Order: sequence, then structure tokens, then C-alpha cells
Amino acid sequence: MAFLNENYLKLQAGYLFPEIARRVREFCEANPDAAKKLIRCGIGDVTEPLPEAVITAMKRAVDELGHRDTFRGYGPEQGYDFLRSAIAQHDYRDRHIDIADDEIFVSDGSKPDCSFILDILGDHNKTAITDPVYPVYVDTNVMSGHTGPARKDGSYEGLVYMPCTRENNFVPDIPNEHVDLVYLCFPNNPTGAVATREQLTKWVEYARKHEAILLFDAAYEAYISDPAIPHSIFEIPGARECAVEFRSFSKNGGFTGVRCGFTVMPKSLLASTENGRKLPLHALWTRRWSTKSNSVSYPVQRGAEAIYSPEGRKQVRGLIDHYMGNASILRRAAAKADLEVFGGENAPYVWVSTPRGLTSWQLFDKMLTELNVVITPGSGFGAQGEGYFRISAFNSRSNAEEVARRLETLKAT
Amino acid sequence: MAFLNENYLKLQAGYLFPEIARRVREFCEANPDAAKKLIRCGIGDVTEPLPEAVITAMKRAVDELGHRDTFRGYGPEQGYDFLRSAIAQHDYRDRHIDIADDEIFVSDGSKPDCSFILDILGDHNKTAITDPVYPVYVDTNVMSGHTGPARKDGSYEGLVYMPCTRENNFVPDIPNEHVDLVYLCFPNNPTGAVATREQLTKWVEYARKHEAILLFDAAYEAYISDPAIPHSIFEIPGARECAVEFRSFSKNGGFTGVRCGFTVMPKSLLASTENGRKLPLHALWTRRWSTKSNSVSYPVQRGAEAIYSPEGRKQVRGLIDHYMGNASILRRAAAKADLEVFGGENAPYVWVSTPRGLTSWQLFDKMLTELNVVITPGSGFGAQGEGYFRISAFNSRSNAEEVARRLETLKAT
Repeated sequence: MAFLNENYLKLQAGYLFPEIARRVREFCEANPDAAKKLIRCGIGDVTEPLPEAVITAMKRAVDELGHRDTFRGYGPEQGYDFLRSAIAQHDYRDRHIDIADDEIFVSDGSKPDCSFILDILGDHNKTAITDPVYPVYVDTNVMSGHTGPARKDGSYEGLVYMPCTRENNFVPDIPNEHVDLVYLCFPNNPTGAVATREQLTKWVEYARKHEAILLFDAAYEAYISDPAIPHSIFEIPGARECAVEFRSFSKNGGFTGVRCGFTVMPKSLLASTENGRKLPLHALWTRRWSTKSNSVSYPVQRGAEAIYSPEGRKQVRGLIDHYMGNASILRRAAAKADLEVFGGENAPYVWVSTPRGLTSWQLFDKMLTELNVVITPGSGFGAQGEGYFRISAFNSRSNAEEVARRLETLKAT
Repeated sequence: MAFLNENYLKLQAGYLFPEIARRVREFCEANPDAAKKLIRCGIGDVTEPLPEAVITAMKRAVDELGHRDTFRGYGPEQGYDFLRSAIAQHDYRDRHIDIADDEIFVSDGSKPDCSFILDILGDHNKTAITDPVYPVYVDTNVMSGHTGPARKDGSYEGLVYMPCTRENNFVPDIPNEHVDLVYLCFPNNPTGAVATREQLTKWVEYARKHEAILLFDAAYEAYISDPAIPHSIFEIPGARECAVEFRSFSKNGGFTGVRCGFTVMPKSLLASTENGRKLPLHALWTRRWSTKSNSVSYPVQRGAEAIYSPEGRKQVRGLIDHYMGNASILRRAAAKADLEVFGGENAPYVWVSTPRGLTSWQLFDKMLTELNVVITPGSGFGAQGEGYFRISAFNSRSNAEEVARRLETLKAT
């Protein structure tokens, strides 16, 4: 009798985004006319075409695979040197952050990386996550058996939840208790909040003191406009001893459909065996990739490399400016509708209070059926997200402007 | 104090292929002249350019991503319908095998799939593997804590090893004991053996009787030339209730660097909770992909789809014929050198006895240093592989011919 992984049975309903997709599909099937006017600001998916530099590099790489003398088969399992080196140089060393090429691990995206990292970690870590939170951190811990069953409010026994509220500017307070692993995401999905250097320094101090590891998701770092805000946890002294960082090309280069991201795993980061022996995680992470992967498609890696070329950087800058222009339009419109607005200044997400005591899902349904706009209900990200909704700035300018117009009518209804 | 996954510490030395790469690198650095003559028949990596149909489809898809109206972001996490449907139709329904589109799960390769499948299975399954075996099946079970420590011969406590020897034509005998999971790979890597319909029928009967699951790796099915040999476990009645199948575009379309494969997960396949409740694995597998992945690069999926076009099929046929031509040349040469030869008739691997009592690694070093040919030592695949070596037929014709010439000199040395 083959056994299944029963931890999966603890998972709540659908993963958030498939659930949104289901409601939208049903509405559109029932209301074909309204469906034509529908604008999606739900899932954080980019809308603008890939940078030209990326297109050119990918097509050239595909052509290489069409000729015997330039054909490439299996690449190095941790990523090609050309890409690891470009990343380490441009994203880190050029910013005076000490990261070696072989501390970069190329992957097919941050979502997989955030889940794969659990492969090399033990089963008895006490894990802290923010609330609200990107659901993948939670669900992958549930799947790995690191939680108890779900409670009525959708939270799981065994996890330490760190509330992010308007009172703490959506940056979690340092826990009063001991934890081993902490998931942090800045700029934050879903709230759009950022953490200051001082706040991140306190987290590094906490981690050093507790020999904890910070799992730092910096997928949205390219959207930071305030020069005082750190782009990487490794800007904080001591972070090389206590942090792993996840990055993505999805939201800067528009790679949501192309698939590429990376992990920064410093060689100085140690974790412990049950009997107290401390070993570098770098060796385990290297082995994980050797055994379980053959890395990322060669043309994709060439596309990612092109993001660091002078043209690529300029084109990516254009994309970021475009989406942040949308964010600004959406922020203003929500404020005009007398809604309380957060985020959207160093992140492509605007986080808004629901009006008149509506729940997040009530507001979702209202926006869908009355305004024909898809947003993400805050409660889908955790109990503390109740009473909020997330508007994604990933859209064309004309769609963002139209959503702004429709949003303003919320005031009257 | 953050804990690491201690199961990784049980793993033996390097993964086989990085270890080979290391020895080859050291030899080449020390012997630059010999390095120029080096021919690699070690790792099973293709050498011929991608089919034209694939190149065209991938470049067209990259172009689509360069225009707003044809841009695509996140795709369905289990793969695009166009590809799932092409696979189910051409590889299964056209061959009278009952597989639905949504039983196909697109991935970035068979190696990841063979490891990811353990995500949804329980930790207390008794697992059987062949010996010799593709190391990924073993190592991923070690990493997941499904084994005890390694023994002196490199085998692990807790696994059931099924010897594949010349006596059973390298097809394992049905176990006398109960097991819950069985890894089977036909055409076999590394031995090149195939299983007959009768043999596979016995495996399905065993699995049905024991409510076991067959994890069937058919990555090399395109190399089958004997029309009596099944290409899929699902050609066997009853397999939909007891099997998962892994397939790859690496070895038919030459996708080792492009990265695409798939799993067939029938909706009728059940596994059990500890208290005996039986549930379909399909729902867990779907959820795994939703939570942990955003599927495979869009241009890659279009490239894989092109393999099923009339031109794509013809071009793939050309590749297979080319590599099997090499296999035949290598078989003849090894036989001329008075070596005992297996495989290479329905698989791109030739499995050869080492001469004069040499161990597999002794023969590896001899071939490397004297003939400047890289092969794979049989013992790297398990204790029963000792005394054999694997020659890969993935090469240019001229290289295969040159390796044949050098092989023949083994007789005299």
C-alpha cells in the first residue's frame, strides 16, 4: 500500500490565485458583456513586452542551439558562469556588497526557490512568517509537515505569525520568543511596505543572537525609489552569517512567462545538526541542485544576462517607471475615493482599506461585479489582511487610468 | 539555532557525473595535448543541433513576448493546454492509450520530476530500486530521509535493491517481499535493456496485488526499434491504477539544454493515508505544481509542441536514427575487442563488461588516460554495475567512429 503525503490534506481550499481565477471565470461566463470591460489588477503579473535586449539575446541563443558547433546540452546545474557572474557583479559587488559568483544559484523563479530552500533545512525549525504574507511560504511549510492543522481563521498551528498592521507600518516587530527561521519580504508583497536599514539591522541582530536564518525575498527590489532603503539584506553587516536572499527577473525584466530567478547563498551561512555540529548550507544547496535539477534553459539564461547589458538596464528602467507611474495613478484615485492607501511608492502594489466595513472578499466581489475590476482580497494573504485589498500596478497605462476612474466611483456607492 | 536536513550528510561523495567531470578536468589540465583528442561518451548528453521546427517555434514564441498584444506572463502552473493536449494526443491517444490532457504535467525535465514526485508521497513507503540504477532515484530518497545510512558498498539501508544482471537480461525479478514504490526505467539507463510486454504485465500485476505504485521512467522510449516492446507503462491493462510515467524531450528533441519533460499522472491512481483512506494523487500533484512552480518557459513549451508537428517528428526521427547508428558502430567495435556487449539496440547506451577483471573505475581511468575517451563506470550506478561500463551513443558520427577505432585497441592492451 503506497502512502501519500498527508500534510497536503491540511492545506486550505485552493491556493489564492487559482481561487481568484475560478471566481473571475464564473463571472465572465455568466456576464459576457461585463467580461469585455474586465480589467485584471489581481495576480501580480506583468503586462508589458520583454525588453528588446532580452528578445535579441534569447533569439541568438536559440540560433546557437541550431548549429552543431554552437550547440549546448546540459549546462552546469547551478547556472552558467556568465549569468552567475553578471548577477554577482551588477547586483552586488557594484553596490559594494561582498558576494562571490558561486554564491549565486540560478533557478526558474523565486516561487520554486522559496519552496526548494526547505529541502536542505531540518524538520524541527521554529518558523516565523508575517501576516499578511505571500501564501507560498506558508503552504510549502504545510506540505513539508512543519505545521499542525489549520485553525478556523486559516492560520496553522506551529507557525509563529508576526502581524503587519498600520500601527507598525506593515513591518513586523522583532519577536519576543526564539525562532529559527524568519521569512521576510521587502519591498513587501502584498502590502508594498519597505523596511529601513535600521529595521533590517535589528533583524540581522536578532538572527545573529538566536542563530536563526532570515529567508529574505527581494523579488521587488527594483521598485525601490527611496535611496535610503536597502535593496538587499546583504547591505546589512553580519547578514552573510544569517541570511539567504531570493531574487527574480519576473518583475524587473518581465520574466513571469520566461522563468528565471536566483538565490544568494553565502558560503559563511551555517546551520546545525541536531547534536550541534555547524555546517555551511552552501554545500547542501549545491548538492540539491546537482541532484534535482539541470538548471534553467540556456536561451533563458542568456535572456537574463541581457538584463545587465547597458541597453537591458535602460529598458528595464523604462518598465519599472511605467509600472510605478501606474501605482501613483492608482494611489491618487484610491485616496480621492476616501480610501486609506498604503504602499505603491517603493513597490508595484497598492494596499488599500476596504470601505464601510466590507470584508476583503465582499470587496472583491463588489469590484468584480460592479466595477469589473479584479483585485486581490487582503484576507487571502492572512488574517491580518482582512479589511484590505491589493491593487497591482502591473497593467497598461490606459487600463490603470480606467481602473482609477472606476475606483473613484467607490466613494459614492 | 536553525537546523539543516541531516539526511544530506548520508549522501556518498559527489553525484556521479560531477565526479566524472572532476576527473576529466584534472586529466585535461595535466595533459593539454591529450585533452585535444578527448572524446566524451560519459554523460548521456546529446550533441546534435535542435530540430529546425523547434528553433522556428521557439523564436516565434520569443517574438510574441516582444509585443504587447501577444505578450504572455504567468502560464498555467501545470503547463499550457496546447502542449498537454499535443502530448496526450500524439504520445498516448494516437497509440490507443487512454490518457486525458489534464493527466499530463509539463516540467523542466525528468530529473526534477523524479525528485518532485516524492513531495506528494509519504515518508513510510518501502521503496524498491534496480541495481544498477540512475542515481537520482536513490539520492532523492536519501535526501528525503527514506533510507538509513550508506553501507560500505555504497548501497543504503532501508531500500530494496533489485539486481539487474546478465542472468535476468538486466530486467529485475519481481520481489518476493512487499514493497510500496518501485522505480523502473525502460529502455534502461544505464544498461540499455528493455522490458517486454509480458515482463511489464507481471509488474503491473504485482503492483495491483500489493497496492504499490510503479514510478516508470520512459525517458528513452523514442529509441525503441523493436515493435513488440511497449513505449509506455500505460500500454499494459491496469497500469492506470498503479503507475506514474516520466517522459523527457531531452533525448528525442535534444532538449538537454532547453529543459522540458512531463509526468503522466492518471486520475485513477490512488494512494493511502496512514489510516487507510484512499485518495487520488492527481489532486496532490496538481496542488504541488500550483504552489511550487509557475511551469516552464513559454518559448520552451512552444518548442516542445513543435516536436509533434509533421516536420518536427521527421527531424526527431533523423536524430534518433543518427544516435542509433552510433550505437550500432560502438556495439560492433566493442564486440571486435572481445568485450561482452549489452544494450544499444533499443536504447542509446551500450553496456559493456570490463576486460581482464578491471574494476569499473580502473577501466574509466584507463580509457581516459590511454584512449582519451570518457565513459561512465558501471559501479557509479550501483554495486551490480561493478565490472561494466556504459558508452553513450550521443555523439557526432565521426566521434563515434573514432571511439570505435580506439575501443578496438583495448583488445591488445
